[in-house]
Amino acid sequence: MPTPLEELGEFSLIDRIVQRLGVAAARNILVPPGDDAAAWRVEDGCAAVATIDMLTEGTHWRLDTMTLGDAGWRAVAANVSDLAAMGATPDYLLVGIGLGPDVTLDEIDDLAEGMLEACLAHHVRIAGGDIIRSHTTTISIAAYGHSLPLAEVRSPFLRRSRAKPGDRVAVSGTLGASAAGLAVIEALRESEAGAEVLVRAHRRPRARVQLGHDAIRAGIACGMDVSDGLMQDLGHIARASGVGIEVDANTLPIEQAAVDLLGARAALDFALGGGEDFELILTGPAEALKRLDQAATGGPPVSLVGRVVGDHAGEVIVFASDGKPYEPARRGWDQLR
Amino acid sequence: MPTPLEELGEFSLIDRIVQRLGVAAARNILVPPGDDAAAWRVEDGCAAVATIDMLTEGTHWRLDTMTLGDAGWRAVAANVSDLAAMGATPDYLLVGIGLGPDVTLDEIDDLAEGMLEACLAHHVRIAGGDIIRSHTTTISIAAYGHSLPLAEVRSPFLRRSRAKPGDRVAVSGTLGASAAGLAVIEALRESEAGAEVLVRAHRRPRARVQLGHDAIRAGIACGMDVSDGLMQDLGHIARASGVGIEVDANTLPIEQAAVDLLGARAALDFALGGGEDFELILTGPAEALKRLDQAATGGPPVSLVGRVVGDHAGEVIVFASDGKPYEPARRGWDQLR
Repeated sequence: MPTPLEELGEFSLIDRIVQRLGVAAARNILVPPGDDAAAWRVEDGCAAVATIDMLTEGTHWRLDTMTLGDAGWRAVAANVSDLAAMGATPDYLLVGIGLGPDVTLDEIDDLAEGMLEACLAHHVRIAGGDIIRSHTTTISIAAYGHSLPLAEVRSPFLRRSRAKPGDRVAVSGTLGASAAGLAVIEALRESEAGAEVLVRAHRRPRARVQLGHDAIRAGIACGMDVSDGLMQDLGHIARASGVGIEVDANTLPIEQAAVDLLGARAALDFALGGGEDFELILTGPAEALKRLDQAATGGPPVSLVGRVVGDHAGEVIVFASDGKPYEPARRGWDQLR
Repeated sequence: MPTPLEELGEFSLIDRIVQRLGVAAARNILVPPGDDAAAWRVEDGCAAVATIDMLTEGTHWRLDTMTLGDAGWRAVAANVSDLAAMGATPDYLLVGIGLGPDVTLDEIDDLAEGMLEACLAHHVRIAGGDIIRSHTTTISIAAYGHSLPLAEVRSPFLRRSRAKPGDRVAVSGTLGASAAGLAVIEALRESEAGAEVLVRAHRRPRARVQLGHDAIRAGIACGMDVSDGLMQDLGHIARASGVGIEVDANTLPIEQAAVDLLGARAALDFALGGGEDFELILTGPAEALKRLDQAATGGPPVSLVGRVVGDHAGEVIVFASDGKPYEPARRGWDQLR
């Protein structure tokens, strides 16, 4: 018979979660978890960089496609990725958890375990949080980090508004793997050869913190992460920068497993319209972007996939290998549509 | 015919909210709302202080007792209060909004208006956010601020763990008004004489930022805000400090309107067990606490209501005017019970 949450009570449950977070719970800070707020020393000469994300059951995950531990990992990775997408270093997370009526203590333990693993993978710690009862299980994480020293770099942030005509467009890693992973899970094909890399990309994505730093140090001023889908996210850059963007479909780094399992067309559409890959989009001079490619040393590849133009401002056009514009099945993710 | 949210789309809705936030949207910071994360300069020599809170419809508010604008105000005030309860200065908020299926554009406008008003009242700005669709309307706010300069004060934070036997216990303002306000609203007695002060305390509570600073400057080292109910919150201090706490019921600053409308017994119980007054609890020497009382100059009163003792560690005992222990109807709020 599992312990009912009502019997445990809010504050015992918080203690239990902090215990299970282990080294991921920030302890050697000025005010660790357990007070009204957390406090820590800030880095001299750096800017504070902060973001918040909210994930909710039914919209961002379903219990038939991932566990609460996976959702916890993804919530951490999504937030860390937002800081990586600024070229910042993540330091601390604050975690709000809304527990739906059916959540069990085992699931909460799994959630803490998933967050712990994601914190270890991304070198970030949890400084505090809040836990409530809700009609719908919801995870809201705020991430707090710091920029590179402001005096050391010309452009301390990767901004959406800094793309210039003449820039090349690059992306890290491979695209579409997360969306392909969800398609594989929904088709009950998880056990097929090659499925694991896709499923893992969906449930346990990694953010690109080091690449963000490297890009800032290389003088890159424009970038963001792929969270809503490549075309949607390039659209954000195009509108914020007042430029057009052109993508060559045949240069996209598509996950081979997605092609093998789902076919070339679906894999391409997932690369263009699937979200939550948490890879980085960067724009800048071709030579600077090429030097960021670490595929030869086991790091993330960086691929040139397009260019920034002065025409069709705010618009993203994809060209197929025959030179004709290509319209994918979906351009990306809008929370309200 | 109101505009459906689906037609507006996520990014137009975000633009609309930022517009309506007006001066509450942080614009003159290194990276204002609209990028992957927000960024600002940090105060030299101060610590970063941060907190997160989550409020959800059904648990923290009901649409028959307050509007979404009221909920937005309260979400801001609750977060600011957590920083006030550390003695910190709030700077920026990050706001995550989960929109339930029935939320209208008018309600979202009202939410933005409520947050704007609360930001103006508390001198804090919104640096970024996230908006999602959810089964349940949920507001998650993370607040970031800074401590007083670490080199200038002996104890830079009001901690729950610093109460010492011999300390007196003080509270600011009046207690129980928010819970009494909810009772008045639920009893459909809003239009009665004296109800307004209670209803306002429930829907538009104020956090005590200046008092937190003053307490730190006066050398007070122990404090927190009244968010879960006085007895529950004193229990947090008693356990964190390993001390006992004794309260004299007849010294509690009970809102007179609550006595007039609901009777002395109910008003006392709301003062002891009702939450979300966002007043500050402070412990320390009687003289230092008395000097914080600003009632004579129109500021918040600070009342001595009890003492910290070496006995019954972890326990809070309330004494009635006849000297006998008094047990209120409810000791406070536990999210899971």
